[in-house]
Amino acid sequence: MPASISQSVEPDIDLAERLFADLSSRTRKGVGIERDSYGPGEQAAHDLMRAAAETLGLEVSIDAIGNLLMTQPGAARQVPGILIGSHLDSVPQGGNYDGAAGVVAGLSVLSGLRRAGLTPACDVTVMAIRAEESAWFDVSYLGSGGAFGLLDPNCLSIRRSDNGRTLEETLRALKLDPEAIRERRRLLDPKSIRAYLELHIEQGPTLVERGLPAGVVTAIRGCKRFRNARCLGRYGHSGATERAYRQDAVAATVALLHHLESVWIAQEKSGADLVFTSGEIYTDATMHAPSKVSGETHFVLDIRSVSNDTMDAVAEEARSAAKRLGREYRVRFDLGDTSDSPPALMDSRLRRALMNLLVQPFEMASGAGHDAATFAAVGIPSAMIFVRNDHGSHNAEESMELADFAVGARALQRLILEFPF
Amino acid sequence: MPASISQSVEPDIDLAERLFADLSSRTRKGVGIERDSYGPGEQAAHDLMRAAAETLGLEVSIDAIGNLLMTQPGAARQVPGILIGSHLDSVPQGGNYDGAAGVVAGLSVLSGLRRAGLTPACDVTVMAIRAEESAWFDVSYLGSGGAFGLLDPNCLSIRRSDNGRTLEETLRALKLDPEAIRERRRLLDPKSIRAYLELHIEQGPTLVERGLPAGVVTAIRGCKRFRNARCLGRYGHSGATERAYRQDAVAATVALLHHLESVWIAQEKSGADLVFTSGEIYTDATMHAPSKVSGETHFVLDIRSVSNDTMDAVAEEARSAAKRLGREYRVRFDLGDTSDSPPALMDSRLRRALMNLLVQPFEMASGAGHDAATFAAVGIPSAMIFVRNDHGSHNAEESMELADFAVGARALQRLILEFPF
Repeated sequence: MPASISQSVEPDIDLAERLFADLSSRTRKGVGIERDSYGPGEQAAHDLMRAAAETLGLEVSIDAIGNLLMTQPGAARQVPGILIGSHLDSVPQGGNYDGAAGVVAGLSVLSGLRRAGLTPACDVTVMAIRAEESAWFDVSYLGSGGAFGLLDPNCLSIRRSDNGRTLEETLRALKLDPEAIRERRRLLDPKSIRAYLELHIEQGPTLVERGLPAGVVTAIRGCKRFRNARCLGRYGHSGATERAYRQDAVAATVALLHHLESVWIAQEKSGADLVFTSGEIYTDATMHAPSKVSGETHFVLDIRSVSNDTMDAVAEEARSAAKRLGREYRVRFDLGDTSDSPPALMDSRLRRALMNLLVQPFEMASGAGHDAATFAAVGIPSAMIFVRNDHGSHNAEESMELADFAVGARALQRLILEFPF
Repeated sequence: MPASISQSVEPDIDLAERLFADLSSRTRKGVGIERDSYGPGEQAAHDLMRAAAETLGLEVSIDAIGNLLMTQPGAARQVPGILIGSHLDSVPQGGNYDGAAGVVAGLSVLSGLRRAGLTPACDVTVMAIRAEESAWFDVSYLGSGGAFGLLDPNCLSIRRSDNGRTLEETLRALKLDPEAIRERRRLLDPKSIRAYLELHIEQGPTLVERGLPAGVVTAIRGCKRFRNARCLGRYGHSGATERAYRQDAVAATVALLHHLESVWIAQEKSGADLVFTSGEIYTDATMHAPSKVSGETHFVLDIRSVSNDTMDAVAEEARSAAKRLGREYRVRFDLGDTSDSPPALMDSRLRRALMNLLVQPFEMASGAGHDAATFAAVGIPSAMIFVRNDHGSHNAEESMELADFAVGARALQRLILEFPF
């Protein structure tokens, strides 16, 4: 297709605006957005996207674990197609754009094509992926991992962090099929997918700081997480327990976290790619008191890097520091196992094509995990475009301008039209 | 009274054993003991003591704010009397002996005197004091402070930490009289009290470590507490927010607590008396997630010393470090005001008398606050005896042997009989 034709086509931004408004009103809970994985919030978002797809006349299907596939048939139907995907779930008290923007982008791209009367060369499917966030079930990429039969069947017994129901019980309640996960059934054939494209809001401040509307992703950081770390000491009277006799879980946990911050700074200085976070920490509310030395803390250690070696080194340092500080503070750290997602490289050919479509080309690593990592892991050429977003993500203040969203969606639409078949 | 007579009298340890068993069965909640200040748990303990006093034939009265006074009339009734007191409330999930042991000791002393047919020279009153613990209402010594009209009337609007009811509402529900506090009414005349004596379990490990059944208290550490400290940062994505852009409330709080531990160590090295504790810390459970940089923490800073100057210096250091680290971590600390209780010296004459009554005389500072500090503050000669107790206090594992309790109660009883009138 000549460039002159594709340049006159635009994504349907009016549709995008309506969908974002509907998502916000249907899935808001208090201050933030709550689209709980495999819960009512995520389901409401799926229902909304499905209705929009049906209005557009797309072919709609739902796979065994609830991923929603909305397909614009191509001129040739037997050749590998293109997927535009992202997830619809959110963290507790999250924002409206993390995940959903990628699905909305796909629909606005397809609506724009239909309005222009253009049929793509191959099928283009918008995939609304389930349960990317690990906040509800303690595992990332349930939807994309499950689509390729990659999940450990033991994940079916993981309980949701809020209501305690297992993934298996939760799937059955939605009339979905946990056997697909148990049998490691492949619901999508990687050979049937020519490319996976994902638009996502940037979750850090880089594009805002640089004054750019969008950027192309080079690689996705992996994540190594101690999700259920604990420190076990002994409760005692705060005034009457001298330092020499204390088994203070808070003091020991503070020492561990402070040490790991210094490890992060040292890694940064050595040029390694790393982010380290403990975003949850708490003493036991049924046991703690202002006049008690604490006997127990719970906390999370979240380690991310584009390098497996760096993540392994920091996790190992956390384990050995926990042993050393456990002796020093007369407590016991139980860090538990890590949940791991590996780093993923984006496809160089698609990256170059997207860079050529941006007026202000810019490349950057992704600090957060994305479903694109799963598609890359099964050998599908994958690419991501980040859209500028103020205030970070995973919070109620996510702030994406529609004009910036349009820059990203337009790049995806043109990539599809100009795809080098 | 000749020493030969007083040496043949013993406290009623059978009564003490029964009272401890009844207290445990009536105020146990799950693993620990819960005698909530001005709540059903504390009231059950008061009812139990009152019934025991009536069985013994003591004169019973209750003051306007619920302190229970149980009096053995003396040979002379118009001269100043002796008070044996302690509190009956406990922290949440506390132990059976903290506080209650002092009231039970008083009753076992008086029961022993009656069994021996001995009348003390002056009235001896066992005072079961209300609400010593600050875990429920955020102020210490409500019962003893209120008895001397010392409470700030604003305390009536303090809300109970669990049910949110104000102290005033709580007192009215028990048919007690908040006006006594509002008018700063003096319910007890210091001139009518010759001496205040308090037996209490030791709340640290010193007597256990030294193999001693009991010890005499030299001074009570004061307490300066930031009860509602917060750190306010900004939520963000844990993977995508680089260190330079973070406003991480957990990292900043860790830095502050780590710094204050180093302040403690330095004070110890300089010979100052100090204990420092943060026994409560938590991120916001409705907002935090493993993949979020935390935007808010809540924590307590508890500073204790026998020296006001030391407490002031550490509190000032906490404030200035909070400012400095707030800038460094791009967050805002809101430490709030401190609630203060001053240190208190015990009466030297009573201390010497108690030391002479112990087979293994031993003196030590009290790390925890006690009602005795209030009595000392209004000029009443006050003394305390500590009883050996394993596993510290303010927890379910408090462990006091009756034989050790008897050593302490016997010393009190003999002090009363041999009191230098």
